[in-house]
Amino acid sequence: MALRQCLDDVEASARQILPPFAIRYFSCGSDGEQTLADNINAFRRIRLRPRLMRDVSKRDTSTTILGQKVSFPIAISPTALHQWAHPDGEHATAKAAESMGTGMVLSMYSGSSLEEIADCAPSGLRWLHMDLLSNTDVMKYIINRAENKGYTGIFVTLDRPVASKKRAPNIVTKAYGRFPVSFGHFQGTDTPYKSSDKYTEHSDGINTWETIDWLQSITRLPIVAKGILTAEDAREAVKHGVSGILVSNHGGRQLDGVMATIDVLPEVAQAVKGTGVEIYLDGGVRLGTDVLKALALGAKAVFVGRPILWGLALDGECGVKRVLKILQEEFDIAMALTGCRSVEEINADLVQKGCTCVAKL
Amino acid sequence: MALRQCLDDVEASARQILPPFAIRYFSCGSDGEQTLADNINAFRRIRLRPRLMRDVSKRDTSTTILGQKVSFPIAISPTALHQWAHPDGEHATAKAAESMGTGMVLSMYSGSSLEEIADCAPSGLRWLHMDLLSNTDVMKYIINRAENKGYTGIFVTLDRPVASKKRAPNIVTKAYGRFPVSFGHFQGTDTPYKSSDKYTEHSDGINTWETIDWLQSITRLPIVAKGILTAEDAREAVKHGVSGILVSNHGGRQLDGVMATIDVLPEVAQAVKGTGVEIYLDGGVRLGTDVLKALALGAKAVFVGRPILWGLALDGECGVKRVLKILQEEFDIAMALTGCRSVEEINADLVQKGCTCVAKL
Amino acid sequence: MALRQCLDDVEASARQILPPFAIRYFSCGSDGEQTLADNINAFRRIRLRPRLMRDVSKRDTSTTILGQKVSFPIAISPTALHQWAHPDGEHATAKAAESMGTGMVLSMYSGSSLEEIADCAPSGLRWLHMDLLSNTDVMKYIINRAENKGYTGIFVTLDRPVASKKRAPNIVTKAYGRFPVSFGHFQGTDTPYKSSDKYTEHSDGINTWETIDWLQSITRLPIVAKGILTAEDAREAVKHGVSGILVSNHGGRQLDGVMATIDVLPEVAQAVKGTGVEIYLDGGVRLGTDVLKALALGAKAVFVGRPILWGLALDGECGVKRVLKILQEEFDIAMALTGCRSVEEINADLVQKGCTCVAKL
Amino acid sequence: MALRQCLDDVEASARQILPPFAIRYFSCGSDGEQTLADNINAFRRIRLRPRLMRDVSKRDTSTTILGQKVSFPIAISPTALHQWAHPDGEHATAKAAESMGTGMVLSMYSGSSLEEIADCAPSGLRWLHMDLLSNTDVMKYIINRAENKGYTGIFVTLDRPVASKKRAPNIVTKAYGRFPVSFGHFQGTDTPYKSSDKYTEHSDGINTWETIDWLQSITRLPIVAKGILTAEDAREAVKHGVSGILVSNHGGRQLDGVMATIDVLPEVAQAVKGTGVEIYLDGGVRLGTDVLKALALGAKAVFVGRPILWGLALDGECGVKRVLKILQEEFDIAMALTGCRSVEEINADLVQKGCTCVAKL
Repeated sequence: MALRQCLDDVEASARQILPPFAIRYFSCGSDGEQTLADNINAFRRIRLRPRLMRDVSKRDTSTTILGQKVSFPIAISPTALHQWAHPDGEHATAKAAESMGTGMVLSMYSGSSLEEIADCAPSGLRWLHMDLLSNTDVMKYIINRAENKGYTGIFVTLDRPVASKKRAPNIVTKAYGRFPVSFGHFQGTDTPYKSSDKYTEHSDGINTWETIDWLQSITRLPIVAKGILTAEDAREAVKHGVSGILVSNHGGRQLDGVMATIDVLPEVAQAVKGTGVEIYLDGGVRLGTDVLKALALGAKAVFVGRPILWGLALDGECGVKRVLKILQEEFDIAMALTGCRSVEEINADLVQKGCTCVAKL
Repeated sequence: MALRQCLDDVEASARQILPPFAIRYFSCGSDGEQTLADNINAFRRIRLRPRLMRDVSKRDTSTTILGQKVSFPIAISPTALHQWAHPDGEHATAKAAESMGTGMVLSMYSGSSLEEIADCAPSGLRWLHMDLLSNTDVMKYIINRAENKGYTGIFVTLDRPVASKKRAPNIVTKAYGRFPVSFGHFQGTDTPYKSSDKYTEHSDGINTWETIDWLQSITRLPIVAKGILTAEDAREAVKHGVSGILVSNHGGRQLDGVMATIDVLPEVAQAVKGTGVEIYLDGGVRLGTDVLKALALGAKAVFVGRPILWGLALDGECGVKRVLKILQEEFDIAMALTGCRSVEEINADLVQKGCTCVAKL
Repeated sequence: MALRQCLDDVEASARQILPPFAIRYFSCGSDGEQTLADNINAFRRIRLRPRLMRDVSKRDTSTTILGQKVSFPIAISPTALHQWAHPDGEHATAKAAESMGTGMVLSMYSGSSLEEIADCAPSGLRWLHMDLLSNTDVMKYIINRAENKGYTGIFVTLDRPVASKKRAPNIVTKAYGRFPVSFGHFQGTDTPYKSSDKYTEHSDGINTWETIDWLQSITRLPIVAKGILTAEDAREAVKHGVSGILVSNHGGRQLDGVMATIDVLPEVAQAVKGTGVEIYLDGGVRLGTDVLKALALGAKAVFVGRPILWGLALDGECGVKRVLKILQEEFDIAMALTGCRSVEEINADLVQKGCTCVAKL
Repeated sequence: MALRQCLDDVEASARQILPPFAIRYFSCGSDGEQTLADNINAFRRIRLRPRLMRDVSKRDTSTTILGQKVSFPIAISPTALHQWAHPDGEHATAKAAESMGTGMVLSMYSGSSLEEIADCAPSGLRWLHMDLLSNTDVMKYIINRAENKGYTGIFVTLDRPVASKKRAPNIVTKAYGRFPVSFGHFQGTDTPYKSSDKYTEHSDGINTWETIDWLQSITRLPIVAKGILTAEDAREAVKHGVSGILVSNHGGRQLDGVMATIDVLPEVAQAVKGTGVEIYLDGGVRLGTDVLKALALGAKAVFVGRPILWGLALDGECGVKRVLKILQEEFDIAMALTGCRSVEEINADLVQKGCTCVAKL
């Protein structure tokens, strides 16, 4: 009986180390934090149907994301302020992703510039996260730089037309003052923008699907639409030429009361079927079987956010690697135990549909 | 990450201030208080389907109630004994509603007379609450005065043919003696009724829909039927000429074990569709997303009761304004995050129907 | 806001008074006590659909059971060992039922003889409970005596072919020794049976529906089949000439894991529809709305067991009357609040069918 | 009111006696232990429909497994390391099974050799458990010896292509060092294998249904496929000539998140209907009614694992007998209370299908 750590252990340990304001900042959701909890619980409601007696002695967990190979279908979601988790910040995260053979979406709110991150993990797979800003020149300026530094996709946040309401105690606001964070994309680079103040100015709800058309016009990089939760919007995204859709509810930090991402995944997957657009998911992934369930229900890969931060807090680059390794190993075991030799063999038959019991109350 | 107060915070603070008998009086429900809890829980069971990438930079939360404009679709339900919450009583509540641009249903059990309330918030939108009394002359007398003082609708309680059974400890009954409350509509006015005793004498179950016909015959004001929970009664109300239906279970204070108001709303909305009769809801509204859910499922506006009292207890007029402001802001964010520019754009597609998950136990 | 006691209060008070062995004996169920809990919880899952604006100023709660009038549709189920609750035992219970205008099923395990009980409450409505014994002469002897003393029906327990398994700590077994209970039907009467030992000897599973035929052949009294939980057995009972069916799971004391009685009631009611056989229910009735729900779903009346014992423990005859009065008053309020003037007006439309909410997890 | 012990009592007592590492080893499941809990909870969700008034005075609990008579449809699942529960180890378990008239599946990880166990309970019904090993000669060698010592079937574990992940604290791993366990099948016998090291070497995922064909080719004993959870695999097993299917999820110790065995049983039973292949179940059986539910839903017999170990820990052979006796008695009562005279009479009508209540949330 091998005894191994799981992601819950990593989180518990990280909470022993981090100061309260950072724990609260990383862990909180919006309003009543209902969606935050449901993202995890929804995975628990889904039952697996394992297939036996297939030769699974050789298993291949690798797949591709936007045409590029990853060692396993688990990559890193964009999250802000990695320095609050560990002094090495995004450097550590990027190096861990590189060494584990997967990709990282670098947040717009990275403490280090996109150039620094590209240089510290040069052979790593990296994508740029983009919030929709009021200043389109800034967006264009950053995207151009990303293209030049080997970023191979833009993950655009669609579900933040305005800020949501958090109930995190104001310990976090106070921390903003005491632990000022400089957003890195304008640091240490030759930038035409004197101040980075404008940089974080959101566009405040003005965007429409035409903004996506504009983004396509200024970059040759594939666009991934992040935050989609309905078939209707998935079809819009496809119509506007995105290469991927990240089913996400912003980790329960934007509109509280939406469905768990794993519950909405089938609807979205069905809507884009046959278009060639890739579907990803983030929110609530904590176990290897969660990854397998997401792939069975239509995801090409999953992204993880908070667990990366807990690993980072615990042990910098090593901690992030440990989190990725735990997930990879658990996913590999889940493949073996469901009779899958490759990610292509993971399909919807592995998941129980409808009521999972003889009788129900 | 903006940090803002929610209605639960207001309630928690108010409970620190109020004496036990008032807390118990305001918060209790009938029998096992099952409906009291379900009114809130039912909102939590409903999942939102947000639409993205619509230009929501300019949003209009205003709507109309009985043809009159309100700044947002949230008004004040009739509740008794505002003096038990704050010495300023209904004066504070009425002024808060006026300054926030919404309306207030003045309870028959107001400590101040309807004239005083009209005078203290002269430009406020106000409606009169009417319990069905044994003395029809008294009803007629009060309604005539309300017409003269600018009340623009009568909200008639239909769900109190007899008193329900409360289990509130008798601390409340004792409080009635120690903190006598004079019902205000006969105070400080020139009234033909020597005593107000008859005033609170209920009609004890004798009323039928003919009572509504009689009410229509004695007033030019629109009638809103309060307390309807079935399609059958909604159709009866329409047949008897009401202008609005307030889906309500008396805040869980009359028949315990009825459905939550948000659960019964679709049935009622469906029943009156196309008649032009407006549907409202009260019971369990605590979040901006609750308001949006109610509007998506057919309500023209929602009314809030207890949260107003908690705000009143905390800080008089300012406290009531704070409660209304919190709800308005949360509702505004909810509109933005679901892609709605106006209340007209809120529709049933924003709410998940049927089972909300992949598998269910 | 009237403040009144409910049955839960009575139980809580009784538990302060009774010795542990009696509490355990009265309150326990079989095996894991799942059905014991579900009997009560199932009522909570059912939602009412109240009808408004009917003249309910005059309400009549009376009905008939086996053709005899009762003041309200709530009678007393057979339970053993009333002396363990109060020294007055079944005398107090019988007198309370008589004075409240309802009936009592006298248990075979009464401490007083059926003659004594008939004499102490001569104008009371009374039925005899009959377990199926190994000695048919004893059954015949007792039934003949019951006929002579004005008992007007026989409630036969069908769901105890063998004893179930209880997990009550052996404090109860020890109590049997220290507080010996004499079963009364052979005490103080001129009986051909020297000893009452044989009396409590169960027939140990030998009975079939032919036993019911035999019972019909030896008595002119109507037979009520107690313990039926399926449509199949309901039809059998009708075929064998019973006058009534008491849907019961022995208060959760026989087969654990069966359905709650209120959940099985519609199936049984449907099966006997149009036959003229009356349906009753016991198990889990604690509120006036529970009574109304049972009647709406097909019961002619409900029977209560444990609440009677708690009332008896608390205050003898007065305590039992209090319990019956609480239920009657709550039922009367429930009728008023659902728009029912008489028990005949209580129908299935008052109960929500199927899923009671907009969305479900 | 007879007062008797149940399996939960036995477990609670055993936990007072066993050292923590043994408790943890026996009781743990994989990952989040969701399936471990669900195996038990799923039985609680199923409601029984008892039939009354059948002559159940003479009941026969006996049945056959693979054509051999057992006194009741409850046998012993293979579990490892019985010495950690009690010094008498598998000897005690085998003797208890023999004296109770049922069978035991001897684990490959028995502390005593299969010959010793056969000799200590010579007239007992015994089957051999087989994990799929990397060394097929070892498998063949052991099976041949089992044939010679009167084992009458091979239960092959199919659901362990690789080891699962346990979260048991490393107290267990440490215990492996301090309390070394020698696997018995190579002890005290004349074996061509110098070391038993290879014996426990798993085949690590290489097996396919052809392995089952090979097993059939080397033994005349019937094969039971253990670990099947889908209709698809059940049909495969039938196609490859198995005589029985043990619906099992390895007691929640392999893939976490699969369905409870009782929930998956109907699907498997339906898939093999008419083939003559027998269906068994293990996982979560704790009550006599659980056994009845399993038989009603298609199982020929159930197997129990952990309860046997708790009984063994408590009192060696006597403790195992007590566990079997409790289950047999409870099953016998359950038969009587549902109107079944023989196991053949147990059918699907005894179980409620679909929603078990009037309304559902």
